[in-house]
Amino acid sequence: MSSPAAPVQAALPRPVRFGILGCADIARKVSRALLMLPPGVATVAAVGSRSEEKARRFVAETGLPAARTHGSYESLLCDPGVEAVYLPLPTSLHVPWAMAAAARGKHLLLEKPTALCAADLDAILAACDASGVQFMDTTMWIHNPRTAKMREIIGDKDTFGDVRVVHSMCSFRASDDFLQNDIRVKPDLDALGVLGDIGWYCIRSILWAVDYELPEAVIAQRHPVKNQAGVLLACGATLYWADGKTATFNCSFLTNLAFDVSIYGTNGTIHVTDLVIPYEEKSGEFNVASKSNFVKPTIGWDPLPRKHVGFTDLPQEALMVQEFSRLVQNIRDAEGRPEGKWPTITRKTQVVLDAVNASIDKGYEPAEVAG
Amino acid sequence: MSSPAAPVQAALPRPVRFGILGCADIARKVSRALLMLPPGVATVAAVGSRSEEKARRFVAETGLPAARTHGSYESLLCDPGVEAVYLPLPTSLHVPWAMAAAARGKHLLLEKPTALCAADLDAILAACDASGVQFMDTTMWIHNPRTAKMREIIGDKDTFGDVRVVHSMCSFRASDDFLQNDIRVKPDLDALGVLGDIGWYCIRSILWAVDYELPEAVIAQRHPVKNQAGVLLACGATLYWADGKTATFNCSFLTNLAFDVSIYGTNGTIHVTDLVIPYEEKSGEFNVASKSNFVKPTIGWDPLPRKHVGFTDLPQEALMVQEFSRLVQNIRDAEGRPEGKWPTITRKTQVVLDAVNASIDKGYEPAEVAG
Repeated sequence: MSSPAAPVQAALPRPVRFGILGCADIARKVSRALLMLPPGVATVAAVGSRSEEKARRFVAETGLPAARTHGSYESLLCDPGVEAVYLPLPTSLHVPWAMAAAARGKHLLLEKPTALCAADLDAILAACDASGVQFMDTTMWIHNPRTAKMREIIGDKDTFGDVRVVHSMCSFRASDDFLQNDIRVKPDLDALGVLGDIGWYCIRSILWAVDYELPEAVIAQRHPVKNQAGVLLACGATLYWADGKTATFNCSFLTNLAFDVSIYGTNGTIHVTDLVIPYEEKSGEFNVASKSNFVKPTIGWDPLPRKHVGFTDLPQEALMVQEFSRLVQNIRDAEGRPEGKWPTITRKTQVVLDAVNASIDKGYEPAEVAG
Repeated sequence: MSSPAAPVQAALPRPVRFGILGCADIARKVSRALLMLPPGVATVAAVGSRSEEKARRFVAETGLPAARTHGSYESLLCDPGVEAVYLPLPTSLHVPWAMAAAARGKHLLLEKPTALCAADLDAILAACDASGVQFMDTTMWIHNPRTAKMREIIGDKDTFGDVRVVHSMCSFRASDDFLQNDIRVKPDLDALGVLGDIGWYCIRSILWAVDYELPEAVIAQRHPVKNQAGVLLACGATLYWADGKTATFNCSFLTNLAFDVSIYGTNGTIHVTDLVIPYEEKSGEFNVASKSNFVKPTIGWDPLPRKHVGFTDLPQEALMVQEFSRLVQNIRDAEGRPEGKWPTITRKTQVVLDAVNASIDKGYEPAEVAG
């Protein structure tokens, strides 16, 4: 920021003015995160819903100070006071509204799954690119400092060696009401079902574990569980890389809550069991083993795995919004370019997700991963 | 046991007199276990090796009191003082020597993998059956009290519900010397390689988790790692049950030490990361979650998973020998019949292992599991 006569203490940057496009449940979590941020990062300028009444109720219930309300998505996008849009609509509505937001020059924080297929995502990314706005999806755990710490360990060749195998399982036991009525089981709203909702995290965590190297091929597990409308409720797949690495994941709406990723390297091992939503929001733990040996005559381990525990002042969803806001401020105030790594990672996730669906459609034959 | 005039304190049962057939490294662990047992359970009567010199050295180094030494396997099997044989020879030698032991009426504690294929195992089991001797394989962890505790939780429908998904990974990072010279990479000795050595535990743990219900089909992962002689060094597979349960495992000589089993039920989850060889031999821990919910607005878990820690006076390998000895004493002293559950479980493990190999041979097509 330029200031003609810089004071001793630099002025705070102007906060990024967010518009929330849709009052989904998850928007409450993101609103809470926005309210947690230190001054000068972000404010909620407006909330838009299909009915202004719903927007007003949302603003009241989430305690958003001074947010304008709009009775249509279109109206929110026309609000000149909105610089960035957080878009938690059902996936099937992402293409029109994300493209409309980008076309109006709004930076875009898009709920995952980002699109029904990579071609749809590409349309959104092209619109963002054409307008020079920042794109980011809402994979929150990637912004947790725990994730960076694990990545540091995995990247240390001496400690961890080369990743060879990854297992991931993300699930929660959905209620009967959810299985009947939630948008995530409706073919016209979130047609990707469990694969889009939490299989997304399995795929993303696997890609993260291998530093975003795309697999060559994906083979879906047989007999995925679908509801009567054909929406996936439980499924799995194995991913294959050119160098022999493999990863397997399962995702399910039908088993107890689990957010597990286990990463097996030539020298080390990492286990985390609450990756997506930490057990407690201000701390995060994981277990790491390195160069584990048997105690002879094979009666124990040496060294034992260690537990890492880290703390964070801001929960991961607040760190996500903070990072997104920092990128927007860099574009707005410092003539920066949009950060390309976020759309790139999103697209890789979507491409692998597409391959899982393609393998299911091909009768569980291998599906190539289109780079 | 009958005694004409029973004293107030019952006499100890006569210990089972073991013969150790072969001086493999693992025999040192089992010898140590035999020495740990309370009085009246088991003694080592004799050790047989291809050279008597080697047998004598083994006896001296393991501190076995008063064990006779034999310079051939045949000579040990002819020792009338040997009631039960512990047989840790390379897998390709199991059929002739296990059948010879059974034919001479020796009870049989057989190292895993028990045979190169189910047909070979069937020959061994038929010989044991014909002689009325007890058969047990040396899967030690099944005798750990931790295993019984986990099984109790998994079997509790309210706590755990129905098992739907299992992930297992067993591996250790073999040294260059191991990868060149160990019998477990030699096609003429242990042709099953990593699949027989530790994939055995993956398969066994998966079957244990589902109460030994056999899967319908197995599909091996593509691109298993083999050495130049064609012996498996790393591989994986997915197992499919008729009711939609699935399990995936990987086993490897090429990644850091791991003995992981994660079991996902409709109501609960269990994680154990040192199943096969506990971190410390006299304690055992695992994590269990049941009916885990999100703390709204999805910022944590409630309830949190709990860690179970149990203790055992005797390590699992001693409990294994104790259980085997108890069954032998029951046959010898109380006219009992051999316990059928052990050969049954062994055979199921072998049958699934065969299906993994069959799937690899069929180019990773599904292989039926022959009940």
